[in-house]
Amino acid sequence: MLEWKSQEKAITQEEEGACKREIKAIQKELAALQQPIKQARLPVLLIFEGWSASGKGSIISKVISELDPRGYQVWSYADPTDEEGRRPLLWSFWRDLPPRGEMAVLDRSWYSRALTRLEEDRAAASGLVESINTFERQLGDDGYLILKFFLNISRREQKRRLEKLADHGATAWRVTDRDWRRNREYAARAEVTELLLQATNPVHAPWHVVQNEDKTRGTLEVLRRVRDALRAALEDGAPRPLPPEQAPWPLRAMPRLKDVDLSPSTTEEAYRAELKRERKKLQKLHSRLYREKVPVVLGFEGWDASGKGGAIRRLSWALDPRGFDVVPIAAPTPEELSRPYLWRFWRQLPKDGHVVLFDRTWYGRVMVERVEGLTPEARWSMAYDEINEFERELSRWGAVVLKFWLQIDQDTQLRRFEDRQSTPEKQYKITEEDWRNRKKWPQYELAVDEMLQKTSTEYAPWILVEGNDKKYARLKVLRTVRKALERRLDG
Amino acid sequence: MLEWKSQEKAITQEEEGACKREIKAIQKELAALQQPIKQARLPVLLIFEGWSASGKGSIISKVISELDPRGYQVWSYADPTDEEGRRPLLWSFWRDLPPRGEMAVLDRSWYSRALTRLEEDRAAASGLVESINTFERQLGDDGYLILKFFLNISRREQKRRLEKLADHGATAWRVTDRDWRRNREYAARAEVTELLLQATNPVHAPWHVVQNEDKTRGTLEVLRRVRDALRAALEDGAPRPLPPEQAPWPLRAMPRLKDVDLSPSTTEEAYRAELKRERKKLQKLHSRLYREKVPVVLGFEGWDASGKGGAIRRLSWALDPRGFDVVPIAAPTPEELSRPYLWRFWRQLPKDGHVVLFDRTWYGRVMVERVEGLTPEARWSMAYDEINEFERELSRWGAVVLKFWLQIDQDTQLRRFEDRQSTPEKQYKITEEDWRNRKKWPQYELAVDEMLQKTSTEYAPWILVEGNDKKYARLKVLRTVRKALERRLDG
Repeated sequence: MLEWKSQEKAITQEEEGACKREIKAIQKELAALQQPIKQARLPVLLIFEGWSASGKGSIISKVISELDPRGYQVWSYADPTDEEGRRPLLWSFWRDLPPRGEMAVLDRSWYSRALTRLEEDRAAASGLVESINTFERQLGDDGYLILKFFLNISRREQKRRLEKLADHGATAWRVTDRDWRRNREYAARAEVTELLLQATNPVHAPWHVVQNEDKTRGTLEVLRRVRDALRAALEDGAPRPLPPEQAPWPLRAMPRLKDVDLSPSTTEEAYRAELKRERKKLQKLHSRLYREKVPVVLGFEGWDASGKGGAIRRLSWALDPRGFDVVPIAAPTPEELSRPYLWRFWRQLPKDGHVVLFDRTWYGRVMVERVEGLTPEARWSMAYDEINEFERELSRWGAVVLKFWLQIDQDTQLRRFEDRQSTPEKQYKITEEDWRNRKKWPQYELAVDEMLQKTSTEYAPWILVEGNDKKYARLKVLRTVRKALERRLDG
Repeated sequence: MLEWKSQEKAITQEEEGACKREIKAIQKELAALQQPIKQARLPVLLIFEGWSASGKGSIISKVISELDPRGYQVWSYADPTDEEGRRPLLWSFWRDLPPRGEMAVLDRSWYSRALTRLEEDRAAASGLVESINTFERQLGDDGYLILKFFLNISRREQKRRLEKLADHGATAWRVTDRDWRRNREYAARAEVTELLLQATNPVHAPWHVVQNEDKTRGTLEVLRRVRDALRAALEDGAPRPLPPEQAPWPLRAMPRLKDVDLSPSTTEEAYRAELKRERKKLQKLHSRLYREKVPVVLGFEGWDASGKGGAIRRLSWALDPRGFDVVPIAAPTPEELSRPYLWRFWRQLPKDGHVVLFDRTWYGRVMVERVEGLTPEARWSMAYDEINEFERELSRWGAVVLKFWLQIDQDTQLRRFEDRQSTPEKQYKITEEDWRNRKKWPQYELAVDEMLQKTSTEYAPWILVEGNDKKYARLKVLRTVRKALERRLDG
């Protein structure tokens, strides 16, 4: 697919003049497209990759030169910062996703980061490719227009440009030892790059390799492609979501909620003793997690008044407050609604070595959003795969991922609701909404059963917690977390 | 104020039992205070400083143990990350400010960072103290309750604890060379710490030094103080804003808007030639900024249709797109409204070596918010000082700060409005609001004149740009920026 040769005829003065006039005209056309993009709520990613000194910066300048700054943002991804280094590869790019109707221009991207990782470890390739393709497919499903440019120059031309930069006092600092090394190893790097580009070249997010030995020609080609792609996207409307590759999710068998035996309970005495034991063990494990830089992501779901808060609190008592966060999930804000559904969860991922406890989770998509009709079926039904993919990313990153469903029966819920209502300091916990949700128990049960069947994977299992007895439930949560951490840390 | 001795009577079993019961009771009281805090929209900062191994982590655990995680967040500030290292000292703490009605628990804070800086450079002390006191006063003015605890242990006790940690395999990694060094240099560090605490001990944000040789007693004292302070704040309502120290702002004399001569203009030819020259010079300066890590903050204000966008664009053409951001300022979001006014501007500060261009700025407080009555006079009239303080922080950090006011007359505005209305691709730029604002010209002029008089400081001057001729205005902006950068870079 890529041609790495680059001998071109030198540009004539006449041709150059014509190119420059067309460049100016297209810059104005791009500016005029910003309003339609905003109105159509089209989110756009323009990605610029290429050899060092291939001219990314100056092409980006040309692309944005006439644009209204309210409609775009330029992101530059040099080597990972320490915040980034402690998160999954794609975290930074999720974090910086533009909202619908805006454009992000990326000076380097996940591809540069992936190439750097491949330099160290070729074996990471298949995982990286899967992560990237999944990410771009999810964005595509969500209506994102993705344009990927690779600016190509020959080894000789790169050497010439690096030498020129190095010769000038004002630019010499830009040329690093790594640039020289990569120029020497041009052939090997070209090969890896070509393999990566070929493996990440789907119809909806194809690569455009632009010969940029002559910058005027290169700039013109990029601008034309950007304009044409924007126009096409605006005319065609949202692209049809693509089916994910039929991933054979390693699913665990899960019982139906109605078949769960809710009788298990614990005596006060046994509870106190075991709580103490588990806390001590967890404390030690938390310290080891921190040192071995293992991230932990725990999700808590369950019926209203099923005891999520109490379980989370008991667990947090065993953890060092400097090493965990509890993230309560409420209705999405407008900022969150204007980006892909999983955006707000990506943003909340812990640093490695840290623990995050989600009080409600990304499963809202296939529960409340489904049952309340907040999201059309076509969209929530895709979420099972999206979520399995999300959790696969976490697991690939090295995270321990567990999800707890706190199960109670309707009588127990009623008793707890009534108790809340009659106890002044608990009254704020119970709202009209809780009573409304209760009336929809059968619809929720259907949704939860389907969710448990479709998303309990080996790498991110659901744990059904019998919650009629709070003490039993809390101990089961602690024990399950403790065992999962032991398995991870002791292999 | 501080007593660094720590010989205490050993705690009796009886006393310990009583303390622990009271601790449990207060934990429940704290949980019960969360709802009132939320309803009163009271923002709270609990700051824990102290010697290494003085027990910050375990006291924080006790403080949060019964709290609903939806109402608080724990922040841990170890050594600055590289993102933090490239921003002003207070940037991280502004970024993480809790919204009204919530609580932030800080495991170390700006004080630890300041102490580390003082180890390197004692001469930084007076600047640090002024920055910190200003920050806390601004928060106090905004209704933040600030509680500061210093956990105190003797040198001998610290040594004992460090040795104990070092002796256990599971905790040995926690003890660093720096901890040992600081234990050896305990006396010197105690002296610096004491000076810092004394210099930052105002009535509205006093220090509580807690003897924590006995952790039960220490915990109880902290919990009591937290509970009492929360109760008092809820009963007293918002504290009265404090007058800032009468800072003798180094103000520049500014003309009244009506006295500005708007006749200057430039020929097309001279414009093209000078634009080119200025761009070349700016390009080189930008590259030097980057290498010398000088941050640049530029603000653009002016009448509607005064040419802000055009000036920003011309300037940005001279900059490397990877080294600048344009930040358009619109009406604040709910998230922003629930924090101090300057929060959203702090968040947008550039990394050192980068340039940020604000398309409208923090001066909205004393213009649109004043004229439209969005903010009471008592509040916006304080903003002149707050803004001068904010810009002083930027300047102290090393930033070049310039603010441009683009001035046009009413006839010119009318012509431009009409032109926008009759040109299809410009129509989106003109709204009903622009016409409404135009009717309030005299009120705005009054506000702008007062703003220019009160906030044009030597370290962050206003530049009045004669904008009736767009070409002249753009050149003046470019030239002014270029000269300011030259002055900075060439001393």
